[in-house]
Amino acid sequence: MTSPQSDESHPRIRDHSLLTRIVSADVAAGLIRDGMVVGMSGFTRSGEAKAVPLALARRAATDPVGITLITGASLGNDLDGLLADSGVIQRRLPFQSDARLRAKINDGSVMYLDQHLSETVEQLRSGQFPKPDIAVIEAAAITEDGGIVPTTSVGNSAGFATQARQVIVELNTCAPAALEGMHDIFIPADRPAREPLFLRNPDDRIGTPVIRVDRDRIAAIVLSDRQDSYANLGDADDDTRAISHHITAFLEREVRRGALPPSLPPLQAGIGSIANSVLSGLTDAPFSNMTMYSEVLQDSAFDLMDSGKLDFASASSITLSAARHADVMGRLDHYKDRLVLRPQEISNHPEIVRRLGIVAINTALELDIYGNVNSTHVMGSHMMNGIGGSGDFARNAGLSIFVTKSQAKGGLVTSVVPMVSHVDHTEHDVDVLVTEQGLADLRGLAPRERARVIIDTCAHPGWRDTLSDYFERACRRGGQTPHVLEEAFDWHSSFRTTGAMVRRMANAGTASA
Amino acid sequence: MTSPQSDESHPRIRDHSLLTRIVSADVAAGLIRDGMVVGMSGFTRSGEAKAVPLALARRAATDPVGITLITGASLGNDLDGLLADSGVIQRRLPFQSDARLRAKINDGSVMYLDQHLSETVEQLRSGQFPKPDIAVIEAAAITEDGGIVPTTSVGNSAGFATQARQVIVELNTCAPAALEGMHDIFIPADRPAREPLFLRNPDDRIGTPVIRVDRDRIAAIVLSDRQDSYANLGDADDDTRAISHHITAFLEREVRRGALPPSLPPLQAGIGSIANSVLSGLTDAPFSNMTMYSEVLQDSAFDLMDSGKLDFASASSITLSAARHADVMGRLDHYKDRLVLRPQEISNHPEIVRRLGIVAINTALELDIYGNVNSTHVMGSHMMNGIGGSGDFARNAGLSIFVTKSQAKGGLVTSVVPMVSHVDHTEHDVDVLVTEQGLADLRGLAPRERARVIIDTCAHPGWRDTLSDYFERACRRGGQTPHVLEEAFDWHSSFRTTGAMVRRMANAGTASA
Repeated sequence: MTSPQSDESHPRIRDHSLLTRIVSADVAAGLIRDGMVVGMSGFTRSGEAKAVPLALARRAATDPVGITLITGASLGNDLDGLLADSGVIQRRLPFQSDARLRAKINDGSVMYLDQHLSETVEQLRSGQFPKPDIAVIEAAAITEDGGIVPTTSVGNSAGFATQARQVIVELNTCAPAALEGMHDIFIPADRPAREPLFLRNPDDRIGTPVIRVDRDRIAAIVLSDRQDSYANLGDADDDTRAISHHITAFLEREVRRGALPPSLPPLQAGIGSIANSVLSGLTDAPFSNMTMYSEVLQDSAFDLMDSGKLDFASASSITLSAARHADVMGRLDHYKDRLVLRPQEISNHPEIVRRLGIVAINTALELDIYGNVNSTHVMGSHMMNGIGGSGDFARNAGLSIFVTKSQAKGGLVTSVVPMVSHVDHTEHDVDVLVTEQGLADLRGLAPRERARVIIDTCAHPGWRDTLSDYFERACRRGGQTPHVLEEAFDWHSSFRTTGAMVRRMANAGTASA
Repeated sequence: MTSPQSDESHPRIRDHSLLTRIVSADVAAGLIRDGMVVGMSGFTRSGEAKAVPLALARRAATDPVGITLITGASLGNDLDGLLADSGVIQRRLPFQSDARLRAKINDGSVMYLDQHLSETVEQLRSGQFPKPDIAVIEAAAITEDGGIVPTTSVGNSAGFATQARQVIVELNTCAPAALEGMHDIFIPADRPAREPLFLRNPDDRIGTPVIRVDRDRIAAIVLSDRQDSYANLGDADDDTRAISHHITAFLEREVRRGALPPSLPPLQAGIGSIANSVLSGLTDAPFSNMTMYSEVLQDSAFDLMDSGKLDFASASSITLSAARHADVMGRLDHYKDRLVLRPQEISNHPEIVRRLGIVAINTALELDIYGNVNSTHVMGSHMMNGIGGSGDFARNAGLSIFVTKSQAKGGLVTSVVPMVSHVDHTEHDVDVLVTEQGLADLRGLAPRERARVIIDTCAHPGWRDTLSDYFERACRRGGQTPHVLEEAFDWHSSFRTTGAMVRRMANAGTASA
């Protein structure tokens, strides 16, 4: 007997009928044609398909191919940069964080759709955007009955795999076997048959541990052994520690007055050094039996679990620094019963975020004196990364907190401005603002009251007089949200021409009102 | 036997134990003290308590009293104006639409919290804002077991009545008896015991027909006989008919390509003449068995029911023009089994809006070339009405449409501007923009692509060249969302000084880039 199984058996492909689909990355990449919409796994540099996109970038050097690339969020292993440089990425959604791709977005050569991360697969499902021709999904294993076990992120993989004409599975042979069983895959039914999500607590499971795909649509299986990239986490510094301290003290006050339970509501924290530092700060705080219902788990989530403070964490992705990666991945069994990874439409779902009354902590790029937040655009025009899940959480959270350092570029730029140059989160969605200077509790305040508190509490002292000067002159013109429109972006404009925000005080005679 | 019941029986107060609580409006208003937080019924000029606030305004002439007034939305019977002029309103949330109150908001003498309408009672419930000292709720009847039957709106009445220390019931003896049974009162449990909302279709009922209040907290019952105000609905004109036509044609195309069902998803339409006209336009469209899941039912909802096209409508309020008021209220029994009125936290709930995949149609004040929408602030500073429920719907809808006329003030002002002077809805939440000029389908487009479509389709032809000129110069500076920040508000600034938006074309040499 010469069945292919006996020749090509693979411990991670337990459905032997699929063994014949194993091909090289180059062959699989050949399935991707110019003009296609391709859905790839990957979320915050975790769990992305690695070998096939690399092969695609190589091929494009001699055989140009341009695609619409949809992912969960950002790709690791330099793939967004390589695919952008090789001309493969023509259109990209819903998130990215790569410097070279960013350059192409900002020069207008890549069309970038910056989306709420819970919404992408809904748009595919309802026909608002073309469905993927091909899905490329990283897997830790294929089960006996053909189920796909995701790796370190779920992202939009389940939606892509369900909707695409063809599926390429990229089996990562170095993914920890302990990942199997850690996922909870639930795909909402098409409307009008949509049911409530029966998820009442972060540790509830409502789906299956694998992605189910009709075997006939699995067009290729590719073996790979590349690791996830490490998270670029800056170390905590005095400023991030101060922000963390302000938030902890605030949450303690809320618990004392009975507005929050001693275990706090489920927590969400955005990606990056500041949010990671804030969460780590809770290790020393007097809260216990905490839970997370977030989109990404960074080092801090595992610090909190190790400290015994965090009972359970739900997310769509795990992304770790070089310092923690080997440790956590090597001990994944130890965390396994306290973790679940879900599709991003579930981890970020407005229904669940509202139901759980989440405390959401996200990062601002700049904020204005009325509490509007810019989290994406540098000086109003240039994309940094994208809105990500911050809008999914901030709009529906029980408590929405935004954090940033009060200054950037060594004090040449203030993060607290008269008017943000781009709005991602309106004052309606911002309850609390925090910089290293202090915490502004904006709940119950009208815009004019917010301005006073934000200037006095969050702005760096060096900018308070000029901000107050703007605010006072604006108030003389009246309005619910007073502005001197012709000056609102003067600081941003001066940065463009001089490399620094230039302070002007009209009341002091340095400019005219 | 001389029980009070026999002396003072009232056909609408069927719980006789409460008859002794009947007092005059002046006596009831006396319960309201300076500094209190007062929650009153009323939503879009319907179902507001009438006699007590009038008495309060009268009393304030000699006995100054200032309160925080929370309602469902806007009050009718000139009450927001009277209470503002008499100095009673010191702080107001979450919505208003009165010219005199607006003046006090914009001059800074009334603090106004403009909120997403689904969120106010959540904030009260979770202790983010002080709970009402007193609730004043209009009722059509009190049932045998003390249940309060609301009138033409539910708004936040159930939340206020449940949370306030004392409740004043204002029994409106001219409210149609047919209102009884039309309401579905559901109050979400406190977290963490919060359950999914088991509402899968607009006609599902999940609550009780009355508001349940502990009898001991009913401090007073006041009889009144004032009608609701009429809605200020402008007649359809050529522009609103053109907008309606564009939307109908678009929805027909979506049905033809299978992206929407022939009955359409449940519809939401904002308040005002344009949205009313759009909905009325569906009377002649080839859709049938339609449903609404909206916050307000205007004349058009009843036009659609009369035409046999609309099977069922769910909302939080009914507000009718002078032309339709007597007719609809007189035949309420006829509509009764096709209507339900819910608390606004349910009519606008993100969970339900997302589940049902609602088509949301809301009104913009201005929109920009990248698809951001201003629906509240005139020239960036001055409040018009408020964001209302538009954010609850636009963020979570299956399809989010914003409508406006392309020009205002006889062509002196363009509604399509380089950058909106205030952001209520970001480009992430805006799928389709419509003016009388045409419809821009923005789905799947990056900001630079959106700009081209919006300028060419939505802007009035007289402004297209100047908008294109701005856009092209902005693109030369680069960015995902290109801007010439120092010019972004030039048109708004010129309006402030000249009463007209002054067009400049830098490329044509009339101004410098």
